[in-house]
Amino acid sequence: MKNNRRKFFKSLGLAAAGAVVTGLHSKKSNASEKIKWKMVTSWPKNFPGLGAGAETLAKYINKLSGGSLAVKVFGAGELVPPLGVFDFVSSGGAEMGHSGAYYWKGKTEAAQFFSSVPFGMTAQEMNSWLYYGDGLKLWEKVYEDFDLVPRPAGNTGVQMGGWFNKEINSTKDLNGLKMRIPGLGGEVLARAGGTPFTLAGSEIFTSLQTGVIDATEWVGPYNDRAFGLHKAAEYYYYPGWHEPGPTLECIINRQAYNKLSDEHKSIIDIACKAANIDMISDYMSKNYQALEYFKQEQIKIKKFPKEVLAKLNKISDEVLIELSQKNQLSNEVYRSYTNFLKRVRPWTLISEDGYLSSFE
Amino acid sequence: MKNNRRKFFKSLGLAAAGAVVTGLHSKKSNASEKIKWKMVTSWPKNFPGLGAGAETLAKYINKLSGGSLAVKVFGAGELVPPLGVFDFVSSGGAEMGHSGAYYWKGKTEAAQFFSSVPFGMTAQEMNSWLYYGDGLKLWEKVYEDFDLVPRPAGNTGVQMGGWFNKEINSTKDLNGLKMRIPGLGGEVLARAGGTPFTLAGSEIFTSLQTGVIDATEWVGPYNDRAFGLHKAAEYYYYPGWHEPGPTLECIINRQAYNKLSDEHKSIIDIACKAANIDMISDYMSKNYQALEYFKQEQIKIKKFPKEVLAKLNKISDEVLIELSQKNQLSNEVYRSYTNFLKRVRPWTLISEDGYLSSFE
Repeated sequence: MKNNRRKFFKSLGLAAAGAVVTGLHSKKSNASEKIKWKMVTSWPKNFPGLGAGAETLAKYINKLSGGSLAVKVFGAGELVPPLGVFDFVSSGGAEMGHSGAYYWKGKTEAAQFFSSVPFGMTAQEMNSWLYYGDGLKLWEKVYEDFDLVPRPAGNTGVQMGGWFNKEINSTKDLNGLKMRIPGLGGEVLARAGGTPFTLAGSEIFTSLQTGVIDATEWVGPYNDRAFGLHKAAEYYYYPGWHEPGPTLECIINRQAYNKLSDEHKSIIDIACKAANIDMISDYMSKNYQALEYFKQEQIKIKKFPKEVLAKLNKISDEVLIELSQKNQLSNEVYRSYTNFLKRVRPWTLISEDGYLSSFE
Repeated sequence: MKNNRRKFFKSLGLAAAGAVVTGLHSKKSNASEKIKWKMVTSWPKNFPGLGAGAETLAKYINKLSGGSLAVKVFGAGELVPPLGVFDFVSSGGAEMGHSGAYYWKGKTEAAQFFSSVPFGMTAQEMNSWLYYGDGLKLWEKVYEDFDLVPRPAGNTGVQMGGWFNKEINSTKDLNGLKMRIPGLGGEVLARAGGTPFTLAGSEIFTSLQTGVIDATEWVGPYNDRAFGLHKAAEYYYYPGWHEPGPTLECIINRQAYNKLSDEHKSIIDIACKAANIDMISDYMSKNYQALEYFKQEQIKIKKFPKEVLAKLNKISDEVLIELSQKNQLSNEVYRSYTNFLKRVRPWTLISEDGYLSSFE
């Protein structure tokens, strides 16, 4: 079990946090009116984009409540390792967590639909499904057994396809491609003939530089630049077909949530919505700057050939169908997700894409 | 002056509200702790999308404050006509308003950049500029002289190009085109050889049906369907090059805002952010349904030819440069807006468009 967790943690690609669960300090009985909550996160403290988003959410809650609900953020490894967040909040060790739902596929397969799936929804489509479709309702249902209340609390926007030392000119170039790409994206690559790796973040740079792997995905220009990946690869490919708009989550322990006043509940719900739009706004403003830097450094930025994307898309459809067959809940979420996507996408193509394609 | 206002109001295209300013009832001196605010809006009560967004914002503020800051929404014409919102909130008649900044170009030319300009930013780009660029800071500066504090509070997403009874196959087809299109979009059409009309919403349908005009823009499928425009036109064109991501605004009377506690100020600021993401999520979920309806009705949905968009884009650039020369403040906002757009767009084309274009 411990080994499994470590393996899973590695697949996440976060720098390995040596810390173990430090356990719960006995709760002080506090006579003051202030409610003090802990938020554990899957990101190193103040990690650009994701960690900043957790801090923003906590700041909003603190401000909205005038300090009567005070949330303190803990970086990955401070109280629990990055992938200990779900269990720790579920058991009430912390009242709140900030993470990504696809990390919990080992708990419940359906979780993956609430962050991002290959060739899935964009950020705006996800938000529409979550807030105005059945998305959030289903997410609550999926997390119910774990005593967790989920809320969308951020989005990175469309990620990048990754860093490559082999040019991808046709689907043939996927054959034997050794690429660091975890999760469903890795499954898709494997079926396309490649060999997916699940390296931890700290191992990526050296593996790419020494040729252990030919390619790696990470996040987008902002986070990728900080990792120095442009110093170990020749080509930077887009789009990030495997993660076209990952939602980040705030999870709240259900007992803790239910004990709150209606006002405090609203504060959490609405603060999460504000944090959601804030994170993608942050990412956009930083991603374009990092992209400019890569251009100055004469990084070769390339788009995957249409043929390659079409093949990966077809395989992704198959992978998602298999995911839907794992259990009844996965099936229910799959049907809602794919139905919404099938219906909303024609509008996205006419509106967002219809406009942006006139600048291509 | 009264005539000018009526003319301007007409150009907005909202159903004419017969109501005049009913004046301020003398404020009750209220011994209770509750702060009661009025929000006047430019939309008919519960108008789909826009009016719903104003209600959502008020609901958030009421919930977040546990009722200690209670905001009551007034539809257009209830206290002031749609285009009386700016003056009424500026003078303190109501503490708060919900509208669109481009309606106030008669007050200050620079305002237009804070809603939408032809070939300008998308919703996500706008939010990034407003929250993480200089956008909101500049908006506050522009509204300072009017004793107003602005906050982004919604977005419709990319609008539609409009309803046409003449096919647009080349730039030549813009010659003599009689189209209802107010504001900067109308200015661009005029320079492209067309004749822009500024009809009120209530006049559009009949004018289109009887051939007084050849074409009209409105909003997008959701609002357009409610207006029945598909019954008076043959073609539905996209994209809405003239309004690619209009931000809606919440404006707050500065004296009223400054009197609030820090907690109440935060409640307004963060509620506006949450309302911002909520409105576009609402619009997406409704627009795709209306689009499906139009397809069932066999409406001919067409994209403007590339050549036409390129010409309109070129003219738009010229129109914006002229706008920037109107005064020093316009110039400052223009420079910030165009600089941000020039820098963020390459990232948008690689991320959002890079992904979506693989489905074209």
